[in-house]
Amino acid sequence: MINKEIITHSFEDLQEAICTELNILDGVSAFKKDTWYRREGGGGVSAIIESGNLIEKGGVNFSAVWGPTPGHIREQFQYEGDRFYATGVSIVLHPSNPYVPIIHMNIRYFELDEHIWWFGGGIDLTPHYIDLQEAGLFHARLKAVCDQHQAANYQKFKTWADDYFFIKHRAETRGVGGIFFDRLSQPGEKEVIFDFVRNLGQSFVPLYKEIANRKRSMPFSERERQWQFLRRGRYVEFNLVLDRGTKFGLETNGRTESILMSLPPMATWKYDYQPQKDSPEWHTLQSLKKNIDWAHA
Amino acid sequence: MINKEIITHSFEDLQEAICTELNILDGVSAFKKDTWYRREGGGGVSAIIESGNLIEKGGVNFSAVWGPTPGHIREQFQYEGDRFYATGVSIVLHPSNPYVPIIHMNIRYFELDEHIWWFGGGIDLTPHYIDLQEAGLFHARLKAVCDQHQAANYQKFKTWADDYFFIKHRAETRGVGGIFFDRLSQPGEKEVIFDFVRNLGQSFVPLYKEIANRKRSMPFSERERQWQFLRRGRYVEFNLVLDRGTKFGLETNGRTESILMSLPPMATWKYDYQPQKDSPEWHTLQSLKKNIDWAHA
Repeated sequence: MINKEIITHSFEDLQEAICTELNILDGVSAFKKDTWYRREGGGGVSAIIESGNLIEKGGVNFSAVWGPTPGHIREQFQYEGDRFYATGVSIVLHPSNPYVPIIHMNIRYFELDEHIWWFGGGIDLTPHYIDLQEAGLFHARLKAVCDQHQAANYQKFKTWADDYFFIKHRAETRGVGGIFFDRLSQPGEKEVIFDFVRNLGQSFVPLYKEIANRKRSMPFSERERQWQFLRRGRYVEFNLVLDRGTKFGLETNGRTESILMSLPPMATWKYDYQPQKDSPEWHTLQSLKKNIDWAHA
Repeated sequence: MINKEIITHSFEDLQEAICTELNILDGVSAFKKDTWYRREGGGGVSAIIESGNLIEKGGVNFSAVWGPTPGHIREQFQYEGDRFYATGVSIVLHPSNPYVPIIHMNIRYFELDEHIWWFGGGIDLTPHYIDLQEAGLFHARLKAVCDQHQAANYQKFKTWADDYFFIKHRAETRGVGGIFFDRLSQPGEKEVIFDFVRNLGQSFVPLYKEIANRKRSMPFSERERQWQFLRRGRYVEFNLVLDRGTKFGLETNGRTESILMSLPPMATWKYDYQPQKDSPEWHTLQSLKKNIDWAHA
């Protein structure tokens, strides 16, 4: 029988495997690991890479935290539950080359009072320059993973990502989306759902490798770099204003440096910046919209 | 009799006067003004300066907005009130020289259903490098303004600023604080409170001029600049995660580019960065605490 210990160990192993493979993919810098403990129960391991060849700043975090459920978190869950258990793996990678997209993945498992449980997760791609072929490839690969599992529904999860990774105050999507799901739970189906979640986690490196290797050697100039900094500013806005995981972490007294590993190495803000009409930057802005069928765009 | 029209016009005049004087103080770049309108009622004028001699990026915003009170704003106010009116002036200036502090000021007036009203406001200083003389001067000047008005209480407002400008998830104050006040209201005292608020607004330029001129010509190197970028990252965290004005603006469908003028031109994040013990950066971190009597430190 599947239980939280098995899930937790599987997430730990996944972090380890992803770091090992990303170390090889980066080729220069290596992940630095910090173990931390939470006073109220649990802790985690943060694996951070900075100033790499491919990755300018990134993190692959594992955590397993538990304890009394804070009041405001209870409200958010809309479940009663005196004690919670949460474990997950979170990844954010900011590449140095502006032609390589930012990638994010998170998979997580929650338990309340040992009898209410659910899985959640998501993966999304934030190109500084949108490339239809790349976005199509990304979505096709995610659809293929979903299609292998009864527990997953690509169309539903793709729409969910469009809604979740949306910067309301900018009326822009964060990037080309991906899939997002939460509260996946069905009596007797824990193993089936876990299979999907684990499979998604295992598909991260092959997928990122395919995408990063297409463009990591493309030459770029100061212009593309400046645009990358501006788009990273939007990434900061999403994570600090809207991201539920970030809020949950900061509100449950998580480790701030681990939670905020998602922030980019450098970001800029220019007042009311508008790229020139028909420029590549302008075309990217035009495509930051919901409901684009990227798999067939 | 004082009323919302008089207060609104006074705030408009104040914005104009401050921009004129800051243009002279900067000496190179000038404020660019944009007028905007809000669909539900009202609008504002954003005055933005970028790439100045003293000011790398800054804004002096005026707005007056009104309309039906949004439900979640009602809860926040803890008052019933079908229609709200809000007007104010907000300033944030990010200097290019890391030895010159970031400064922020806001003064505002609220009305609900034309009979409930209050003033709020605050001013605080965020040095990249804390200088006791500068912090002492800043607080002494604010105390002098407060001491001229029955409606103001420096001690109370200083403590309020310590609590408000506190980055909980970092356990750090944003800078050396200043004063903060909200819900100032007393039957028959509207004029008296307004006198204080207006006087605080008028004291902004002389105070900033005195502080900026002390250090704007100090030479600095890449090291100080790098530290400035990291401290600006904290400023971003405060504004996007905690600042009530930013939240209010984004939630009431305000103009995003005006609200986010407070964000710095460039900011960086380094994982778990710790300055060397006894360095100037380390000393600054040690002093980012509440309850320091800066006026006598």
